[in-house]
This record gives sequence, C-alpha cells and structure tokens, in this order.
Amino acid sequence: MPYFSLALLPSPTSAAARDDLPAPAPVTGQGEVTVIGLGPAGPRWLTPEVGRALREAEHLVGYGPYVDRVPVRPGQERHTSGNQVETERAAHALDLALGGARVVVVSSGDPGVFAMASAVYEVATAEPRFAGVPVRVLPGLTAAQAAASRIGAPLGHDFAILSLSDRLKPWPVIESRLAAASAADLVLALYNPASASRRWQVGAAKDVLLRHRDPKTPVVVARDVGRPGEKLTVVSLGDLDPETVDMKCLLIIGSSTTQVSTRGDESVVVWTPRTYPA
Amino acid sequence: MPYFSLALLPSPTSAAARDDLPAPAPVTGQGEVTVIGLGPAGPRWLTPEVGRALREAEHLVGYGPYVDRVPVRPGQERHTSGNQVETERAAHALDLALGGARVVVVSSGDPGVFAMASAVYEVATAEPRFAGVPVRVLPGLTAAQAAASRIGAPLGHDFAILSLSDRLKPWPVIESRLAAASAADLVLALYNPASASRRWQVGAAKDVLLRHRDPKTPVVVARDVGRPGEKLTVVSLGDLDPETVDMKCLLIIGSSTTQVSTRGDESVVVWTPRTYPA
Repeated sequence: MPYFSLALLPSPTSAAARDDLPAPAPVTGQGEVTVIGLGPAGPRWLTPEVGRALREAEHLVGYGPYVDRVPVRPGQERHTSGNQVETERAAHALDLALGGARVVVVSSGDPGVFAMASAVYEVATAEPRFAGVPVRVLPGLTAAQAAASRIGAPLGHDFAILSLSDRLKPWPVIESRLAAASAADLVLALYNPASASRRWQVGAAKDVLLRHRDPKTPVVVARDVGRPGEKLTVVSLGDLDPETVDMKCLLIIGSSTTQVSTRGDESVVVWTPRTYPA
Repeated sequence: MPYFSLALLPSPTSAAARDDLPAPAPVTGQGEVTVIGLGPAGPRWLTPEVGRALREAEHLVGYGPYVDRVPVRPGQERHTSGNQVETERAAHALDLALGGARVVVVSSGDPGVFAMASAVYEVATAEPRFAGVPVRVLPGLTAAQAAASRIGAPLGHDFAILSLSDRLKPWPVIESRLAAASAADLVLALYNPASASRRWQVGAAKDVLLRHRDPKTPVVVARDVGRPGEKLTVVSLGDLDPETVDMKCLLIIGSSTTQVSTRGDESVVVWTPRTYPA
C-alpha cells in the first residue's frame, strides 16, 4: 500500500489557499472545484473563507434551496438541481472545471458532513478524465453545532454524529451503530431523522436507545435552527413522540451525564459536563 | 421531571440574538457571558457572529494563547489564564457579568466541543448567585472539520468525536468507547491524543483499534491545521507511530469504507463514501 506508508503529504488545497486572508485569486483559466458549506442558516455563520470563494466563483452548482441562499452576482452562472442527485451534480461541477471554470459546489452546513464533498471525491476519483481537476473543500458549521449552541452545550463531551437515513445504508447498520454508541454512553446527534417518506425510523431508533439509556435521558428536538421558525424542544427519551419529528429536525440524545438546568429567566439549558465519573 | 416533559422552550439566547445580522447590541449595563469559538486558526474561519461579539465585548476572558489571537481593542479588558483552570475562569467571567459587564469567554475551535461552554454552565448552575446571569454560546468550526477539509472528506459518513485525554475521565471509559466506536465501524476523530505528560495513550488506543480494524485502515495525523506549520500525514493504522503524535495533533481514523486516492497532481485525498454496503 505505497500510497499511505507514512508519507508527508501536502494537503489537497494549494499553498496559497492555506495562508490566511487575503490569498491571491486562482489563476484565470485554470478550472477548479471548491466545495463549500454555507453553515446551517443565515450569513452570521458563513465563514470569510467561504464568502470569498462565493465571490470568486464563475459557476455555482447545488441543490436549489441552498443555491437560493447565495446572493445573486452579475456574471455568475447558477446551476440548481433537485435532492438525491448528488453524483450527477458532482459530475456537472467537475465537467465545468475541466473546461477551465472556477466552480463552487454549494452545500448547507459543513460540506464534509453528510454532504457534497464525498460525492465530489467519489466522482473525481472514479472518472479518469477528472484526475487533473483540483478539488478543495472549505469547511462550514454543521447543524449539530448550531443546535447544540442554541440549547447550551450538550456536545461538551464525547459524542457521535449519525445519519438516520436508510437511503444510502441498510437499516441494520444504523441500528447496530445506535446500539454501540448508546451502550458506550456517547451523546448522539442524529441527522436526517425523518422525511415525508421515512416515518418509522425515529420510533425504531427510540426503541434501540431505550435498551441502553434511561427513559429520563434528555432529548433535544431542534427544528429550523437559525431560521425564523426556530424551535428547540427538550423532552425525555421515554416521552419522545416520533410524530413530532420531520425533515427540518435534528435530534440530540444526551448521555447518562447530560444535565438539564433551569436558569433564572426560566429558560432551560442542556449541557454535558467535561468530566466523566470513574 | 417537570423540567423536560415535552415543553416548548425558548433557546437560551435572546430573541434579538437569534435574528440574522445586524442585531441590536445588548442593553448597556446588563451583564452577560457569551462563550465563543474562534475556529481552529486564523480569521478565515471566524464567523461574523463571533466577530461581532468580540467587537462588543467589554471583557475578554480565556486561556492566554487563545485571547492572544484576538486583535487588541481600546477600552476592552483582557483576562488571561493558564490551561486546566476552566472552572476558575468560568467563575471569573460570570462574576464580571454579575457586575453588569458584557463578557466574552474565548475558546478555540467550537466552544461547545471539549471547551469552555460546558465549564461555564457547570459553574453557572452550581452557584445560585449566577442564576440570573444570561449565558449564550456562539458556535465555531471545530478542529476535526478543519482537518477533514484539508485532506478530503473523511467525515463524510457516520463518525464519533472522542477526547483521548484521561485528565477528566478514566482511561477504561475511553478504551470502551474506542472499542464500541470501532466495532460499529464509525470514523473516529480523536482530540487531545497526547501531551508532554500523556505519552502512552496513543499507543494504547492503537492497540484497541487494531482489535476491530484492519491494520491498513487509513489514519490522518493532522498537525497545526490552518497554521503556518500545517502538516497532514496519512499512514496506515498498523504503521502509526505514537511517537509522532503530540498535543498539536488531531487524529482521524478511517472506517472500513474510507478511501485513499491519489489525484493527478500526486496529492493524496482521504474520503469516506456517503453510501455503506449492505
């Protein structure tokens, strides 16, 4: 396995991109794909690095609702597509870059977490014609961080981030991961808990978790975090009603040490101590 | 447990803080503690929301090297302290806010991930005199996201984030979590893998992981991500030399599906596919 035998490697970004702002713009006519994350919502969580990439892009490629969050700029072409066509979208972006364009693939949250970065590498490495197209990934805040910050600090100790969607992996794998993580007393952040067509998964996950966790374990149901309809609900695992969870939600399941405290203004905070008892 | 029986709760931030920029500044004379994350390094990853909180702060409280990363502003007081005094630092910040000051507690990375947010809630809920002090948390990019983005997309599928430090939890707990997470085939990001005084933990963790993972599993040793000395090394788990890991490093351990690919420019990328085989 010569390709990873203790090699000191340059990161896949260019040297210029590694320096802090301002960095020189890419050479005109040299195409590249930059996969960016807007953060979960709103400009307050969009990093300066991503803002710069968006300004310099010649083409924006992404799922319609995400591209719609980027202000329109004259001379910039926008290519939107539906959900669940990640591979086609990645190929489209790589083809544009192969033609010499600076292409930004727009993800919400962090593009490296259940998002477009893996899809772009999947296509870029599978198709020999894309071997020479530079690809870089610019991180963004992911939904679990935003949700956690809104309710306190539930991710303050060891945790796992799992997707509850069985569209791209078999349900038994999800079930075994839920069991392992809850048996190991990790806090859990669950992405994609439900959708219009995936309705039974939250109930099934709850059953698995209850085999290892106290029914009083706090659960945060975070809906539309950072958006106008933001709502954070704290409920015990035993009382969690799967019907209240839809595709706009993210769930955080506490560990045995996660605390629920009421502050002086009656607000409730959920936080996990940094220390873990012997 | 009336405090979390399916209550619809306001998030702990004020309504104004939830809107997008620009939000009104806090009322003068009303103290508050804002726990912020600078991101792993440099202004390119500092969110606008955090930038605003830093500008509006009357006091900055934090670990010296983190506060040193914030530009000096006239009229702003800076209170730096050493590592491992998180509780005292939190109490100091809360006391300043109790006196009416706008206080920002400065963390690196995300303050909600192995950082000051939990310490502040710990003190704020333990001491009755702090019950009325508003506390809010502003998220930041955490080191695992930055490291992942520099080498590709290793966190593109289910993963766990664990601290390898046994300063605040017993080693057997860490060992059982490593075993559970690797048996469940989660990608792992390991924080605090080593320090000047903690030298054997990486070797011990490697032994646990090798019980569940192929020795060829790719490991990313990410050092000083985003800083001038940034270096990303990809090595197989079997070849990982614990001596090469120190407190400036973060480790990412692949799952069975994590790929290592060489691009046209000879750079190596590590990425985990979105799909998981049946």
